[in-house]
Amino acid sequence: MAVGLSAPEVLLPVAGVRLAAVPAGIRYRNRDDLVLMELAEGSRVAATFTRNAFCAAPVTVAKRHLDEQAVRYLLINAGNANAGTGERGLEDALASCARVAEGGGCDASAVLPFSTGVIGENLNMAAMTAGIDKAFDALAEDNWMSAAKAIMTTDTVAKGVSRQLEIDGRTVTITGIAKGSGMIRPDMATLLAYVATDACVEQQTLDKLTRRAVDASFNSITVDGDTSTNDACVLVATGAAGNAELSEASDHYGLFAEAVYEVMVLLAQAIIRDGEGATKFITVAVEGGRDVAECRQVAYTVAHSPLVKTAFFASDPNWGRILAAVGRAGLEALDLDAIRIWLDEVCIVSNGGRDQDYEEEKGQRVMDREEITVRIELGRGQAKATVWTSDLSHEYVRINAEYRS
Amino acid sequence: MAVGLSAPEVLLPVAGVRLAAVPAGIRYRNRDDLVLMELAEGSRVAATFTRNAFCAAPVTVAKRHLDEQAVRYLLINAGNANAGTGERGLEDALASCARVAEGGGCDASAVLPFSTGVIGENLNMAAMTAGIDKAFDALAEDNWMSAAKAIMTTDTVAKGVSRQLEIDGRTVTITGIAKGSGMIRPDMATLLAYVATDACVEQQTLDKLTRRAVDASFNSITVDGDTSTNDACVLVATGAAGNAELSEASDHYGLFAEAVYEVMVLLAQAIIRDGEGATKFITVAVEGGRDVAECRQVAYTVAHSPLVKTAFFASDPNWGRILAAVGRAGLEALDLDAIRIWLDEVCIVSNGGRDQDYEEEKGQRVMDREEITVRIELGRGQAKATVWTSDLSHEYVRINAEYRS
Repeated sequence: MAVGLSAPEVLLPVAGVRLAAVPAGIRYRNRDDLVLMELAEGSRVAATFTRNAFCAAPVTVAKRHLDEQAVRYLLINAGNANAGTGERGLEDALASCARVAEGGGCDASAVLPFSTGVIGENLNMAAMTAGIDKAFDALAEDNWMSAAKAIMTTDTVAKGVSRQLEIDGRTVTITGIAKGSGMIRPDMATLLAYVATDACVEQQTLDKLTRRAVDASFNSITVDGDTSTNDACVLVATGAAGNAELSEASDHYGLFAEAVYEVMVLLAQAIIRDGEGATKFITVAVEGGRDVAECRQVAYTVAHSPLVKTAFFASDPNWGRILAAVGRAGLEALDLDAIRIWLDEVCIVSNGGRDQDYEEEKGQRVMDREEITVRIELGRGQAKATVWTSDLSHEYVRINAEYRS
Repeated sequence: MAVGLSAPEVLLPVAGVRLAAVPAGIRYRNRDDLVLMELAEGSRVAATFTRNAFCAAPVTVAKRHLDEQAVRYLLINAGNANAGTGERGLEDALASCARVAEGGGCDASAVLPFSTGVIGENLNMAAMTAGIDKAFDALAEDNWMSAAKAIMTTDTVAKGVSRQLEIDGRTVTITGIAKGSGMIRPDMATLLAYVATDACVEQQTLDKLTRRAVDASFNSITVDGDTSTNDACVLVATGAAGNAELSEASDHYGLFAEAVYEVMVLLAQAIIRDGEGATKFITVAVEGGRDVAECRQVAYTVAHSPLVKTAFFASDPNWGRILAAVGRAGLEALDLDAIRIWLDEVCIVSNGGRDQDYEEEKGQRVMDREEITVRIELGRGQAKATVWTSDLSHEYVRINAEYRS
């Protein structure tokens, strides 16, 4: 029941990236569950990882390898998160990298491993090893779509986006895939996102761009505030397009960064649209704050409130719940009279209470929609922030209560 | 479907306190919905209020009046929160106080008003006024039970506790009542608690005791993290027992404080046991932290996690969800190998992963219980903190989605 989301029709190949998706039988039967991505020599890679202290073994290994040397392979398995697996988990992740290194003729530390799936079970290493060997025979540039499908766990729709632009008279491609049914399931854990471009980008610029774009996309969505043990987002720039190296000072950098933002934001929104039990896609836009941090604080308090989320599920214009969430967000010295709150085009709150022109029917008209924006004007500065979320439905409880049984 | 909770069999009168509960018809029909509490002259009062910036008009007025002079009356109505009502709401709260002052022959600022119920609607002042007048004729010492019932909104069980102890050869009584179906409903808003004793207690001691006991009770429970616009807890000491004034240095202070703590903790737990849709009563006890703040942070992260809560609802020993919640609680420099987690007597996590002696059947045995303790040993200090919560059920979503329609 994804909200306004269908699988991508086409995902463009990115020069310098070859992919393989194979059925390794790690947990699922009769479907691909292992992806190998090969990056051309000279590719630059930036990544962000979960801040969960109980991070999974592959996250620990991927972080270490990223610091050590140039990356040549990404290895992703679905069905088992290799999290909460202690020392044995680390050994398994390292052994997987070693097997890829063998096939690819590189150091094990040139391989970044990623896992998503059930927590607390050891990886089936026989299946992993056989799957890795099989993957080397299947590497091809046009396998993005099958890779998008192979990394799915509880996702109901494969998620991918491509964009192209011209830089220095060269066509530059950006393609990204992601999985995640709402960041909300530490047992079928994980948001994973892989975005690659053939643009040539200076390393520091790539690092900074990744941090910023992830903040504006994957770090701006929430279903229920649960951060998985395995979350990761990787941005690859192979340089195969042949453009002059991009840095923040480059003429075309703005356009390029914008395209990367767009790909990541669309992927992040796709995860919310496919959120567990989601029946609505909600944008919470907070404006007029003193800084971005306080805008995000208010937006997340509204987006996490089970009361606000159940009201959206019920299409109930219960504006008191939104007002109460803003009030408990913890901002100092709020001027309540300056705050205004809208549901799409309808002002619901002004001067510390219900807006004088508000009528229940107007609110109901908005709440009946499938996509709704809550706009909150704090009236004390110029900063703003946007967060995307879904509603809280019977289906959410059913999925999460019944998942293991 | 309150968990292990029934209405109190007896609530002891407190010398110096008279109460009345009357049917004012503010929102409900055929039931009491207005309570007046009269405090003997010389009574001392301490209170804590919601930290929600959009606090209700009666909260604003009660805070102001408490600072101004000795309190003689508490006025509580159920059915309408008088919140989100702007200037008109303040006028109504003040007018209610003035009406009580008229009947009681005191200043309006000797009256503290409290409201609980729907947000954003104006009080029916004709009903309030007539109700107040009626209440004066009904004041009596033994009306605690009817007061406990009259302040209920979505509560399914009336909540009250009495304790007695000897101080200076005098019998001292402590009686408290509370309402709240989980602190979770800003529209049928509110946790309200009123505890009175006939002990004579020095004012600063009373203030400090209130803050500490509220921290250990009402500030240590959560259903879903939503703080209402109207929350308030009041502790009254009339002094009518005739004991020597209690201060922190007094011989009997420890016993007295312990009894007050016990009353408040039982009332707070009663609110969780009667939480919306609750089928389980969960204690989250965090030990071995560097300070209480970080223990509370971990406890609340676990207690708020929808994934942990749905697992409890499903009686699913899904320990990975608890581990992931601890990991994302935001504590710096956690030593994962030092952390141990138990479900009642069963150790589920040690050395960064599943405990080596853990078996699914052991976890299942605990999860089948109606009352469960999650104990988390952080292994980095001596501090501890406990939080009480409920599970997240289908019923919770149903109640909150369908409440207004």
